[in-house]
Amino acid sequence: MAGELNTLSAAEIVRRITAGDCTAVDVMAACLDRVRAREEAVGAFIHIDEAQALEAAGKAGPGMLHGVPFGIKDICDTADAPTGWGSPVYEGFQPPRDASSVNLFKRQGAVPMGKTVTTEFALRHPGKTANPHNLAHTPGGSSSGSAAAVADHMVPLAFASQTGGSIIRPASYCGVLGYKPTHGAVDLDGVMGLAPSLDVLGLMAREVEDLVLGRAAFCGTPATLDPCFATRPPRIGLVRGPDWDGGSQEMREVCEHAMSALETSGAETREPPDPATFKHLVKSQSIVMAFEGARTRSFEYDHHRDQMSAPFAAFVEEGRSYSWQAYEEALSARAVGQQELAGVFEDVDVILTPASPGEAPESLSETGDPLYNRIWTLLQVPCVSVPFGTGPRGLPLAVQLVGPLRGDGRLLAAAAWVHERLRG
Amino acid sequence: MAGELNTLSAAEIVRRITAGDCTAVDVMAACLDRVRAREEAVGAFIHIDEAQALEAAGKAGPGMLHGVPFGIKDICDTADAPTGWGSPVYEGFQPPRDASSVNLFKRQGAVPMGKTVTTEFALRHPGKTANPHNLAHTPGGSSSGSAAAVADHMVPLAFASQTGGSIIRPASYCGVLGYKPTHGAVDLDGVMGLAPSLDVLGLMAREVEDLVLGRAAFCGTPATLDPCFATRPPRIGLVRGPDWDGGSQEMREVCEHAMSALETSGAETREPPDPATFKHLVKSQSIVMAFEGARTRSFEYDHHRDQMSAPFAAFVEEGRSYSWQAYEEALSARAVGQQELAGVFEDVDVILTPASPGEAPESLSETGDPLYNRIWTLLQVPCVSVPFGTGPRGLPLAVQLVGPLRGDGRLLAAAAWVHERLRG
Repeated sequence: MAGELNTLSAAEIVRRITAGDCTAVDVMAACLDRVRAREEAVGAFIHIDEAQALEAAGKAGPGMLHGVPFGIKDICDTADAPTGWGSPVYEGFQPPRDASSVNLFKRQGAVPMGKTVTTEFALRHPGKTANPHNLAHTPGGSSSGSAAAVADHMVPLAFASQTGGSIIRPASYCGVLGYKPTHGAVDLDGVMGLAPSLDVLGLMAREVEDLVLGRAAFCGTPATLDPCFATRPPRIGLVRGPDWDGGSQEMREVCEHAMSALETSGAETREPPDPATFKHLVKSQSIVMAFEGARTRSFEYDHHRDQMSAPFAAFVEEGRSYSWQAYEEALSARAVGQQELAGVFEDVDVILTPASPGEAPESLSETGDPLYNRIWTLLQVPCVSVPFGTGPRGLPLAVQLVGPLRGDGRLLAAAAWVHERLRG
Repeated sequence: MAGELNTLSAAEIVRRITAGDCTAVDVMAACLDRVRAREEAVGAFIHIDEAQALEAAGKAGPGMLHGVPFGIKDICDTADAPTGWGSPVYEGFQPPRDASSVNLFKRQGAVPMGKTVTTEFALRHPGKTANPHNLAHTPGGSSSGSAAAVADHMVPLAFASQTGGSIIRPASYCGVLGYKPTHGAVDLDGVMGLAPSLDVLGLMAREVEDLVLGRAAFCGTPATLDPCFATRPPRIGLVRGPDWDGGSQEMREVCEHAMSALETSGAETREPPDPATFKHLVKSQSIVMAFEGARTRSFEYDHHRDQMSAPFAAFVEEGRSYSWQAYEEALSARAVGQQELAGVFEDVDVILTPASPGEAPESLSETGDPLYNRIWTLLQVPCVSVPFGTGPRGLPLAVQLVGPLRGDGRLLAAAAWVHERLRG
């Protein structure tokens, strides 16, 4: 019996606990059982303390996440567990406080289960995590442990963050839902910064309902789905982006098949042309990310270069090579792109676009390419990765849904509509 | 001889050290002498280690701030000094790293002198600092120690931060230059967040040239003043704002006298009407600040309420009382205000507006009112406080100059033009 509690959604856990069908300790015990069975292979957690997690479950207060275990990406400060940022520089460091996001989850009755693996400083250099669908393949990154833990039914909900493509890509590779909120909507106090004008904290889950609950805990928004698409289907626009033609066939096919399936299900489908500036925005995002990243990690580069991977050092050096003027031009390109994108949303409720280059690459020494995420991250808009079928090697594929700035509530409603119809 | 080195500007220190006229250790020793003579009365520093400061001066590398002592507001992480955020909760806490801003200053040869007093969590509840011009009066806050230390010639340059009016107001009260950069321009990694969409890190100094140098160290911008007003005077617009009529006579007079003096000096002066939304924006700023502040300090409120001042607890409670919708409406008001303000800058290079309600209040239990700073902070635009004369009790007065978003370089050029003409 306990053995299946780990497969429940967060919302279902709350319903069962509220109804008295199980306790928060039962749920945590089931999740920990799953971790014990699978962690050696999957490697989703960098720190987990079973006794502490069970004790916290026993004390879980009421709230919209009552008794829900959650994974915390190891770039978020925790007062009762070390926070290492995926780097030997900070291995074992014990912060004096919880990140605000962690505290806001706890206030709603959610129970921290452990710290999930991040790549080094939430960039590229991977941790120990494998893709639970095929252990020889990357789970994606930087939110590697959170994506793998949710995909492998170790935990229903986990914190993730994105600066390039670190939520949407691992969600796509692991076949779970990934939600990247509008920039600024979720507080980042106590969360390691990489490139502040891009950084967002979001979530991995297996049900859209759980993303809505998590957003409600972070933001104080309603705990139920926006009913906007209860009476009419969403208008969905396929935006291919500048790297469509050079991409893989599996990537193009998953988008086109999804559009057909959604049209068959009643969605109004469109194909708006790419906004004119889009072809420059991957480069703009790279400049903003490296320029800002070279500043945030300036201390570590100057003082702990010997404990830094070569790719991260090269990233800082790239950032230092950009002039202030190049950075400001990239910020201006962002502003133009945001205006153009607002025009697209006059005719569609949600954009459908690639989530990743395709299936997870067969490698544990890289985490894949954020190419299809960079533009949306630059533009600060909310995104959701929705799993859809599998590719030639049987690994998960996904599409990415994008909403307008601060349109997170309606985007999640559209994601629920789409997820329901694509999950078959 | 050493006795006067503490009165030099940062730029002059660099020139003298480069010319071999003095050493970084001479300069630091002079500043420490001044601290020893005055600190008991002024109380600008919460932590200072003379031996460490002198040793660091002896090792100062070359750079655009070679040998310049600087004060660090105690909300900025430092790897070699505790960082307490002005709260008993974190008194004595030793971070594992320097804030990026601290590291960027050190990279340019600047030498940390000590940690300056901040109000509790950079809000209202004051620390021990007095106004060096009259010890019975507040120095303003939250950047109390930085303003007082620079005004009292303990240090030429100091970090300050603003979320409401925490740079411009204490600068005004203490008779120094305060520079609040465009939001996002200076990296905040390792700096305590209060309300992230408002928070900015800036500087206190006695010369505009030093603000330009400090900005260059933070941002990689040119280390010399933008020459835009070398050949023509700036166009200056008096924007009174919605709280002009209800304000003090001394506040209105300092602005009007400054406008007259600048017109006499050749400036083109205008009086553009207040943008239409301005009358709502003080309230919008209060909502954004409290809503975001209730999230950033959520952990401390829930876990250390007993060590929190009543005003700070009330601030968190106010923030928790606002709905997400109220917050989003305030963000929308910001966007409208930013558009309207951009229109004003079509006809003027810089806005002149009140910096503070007037002279520093006679009290050490409050830090004065940020009323005249809230709108500009909400709108994320760069601001400079320029001292101008004294009030009825002989304390400093000032005007505030405001530039367009990301127009920091030209704003500082205008501030240099104005400062030169108003200093008499």
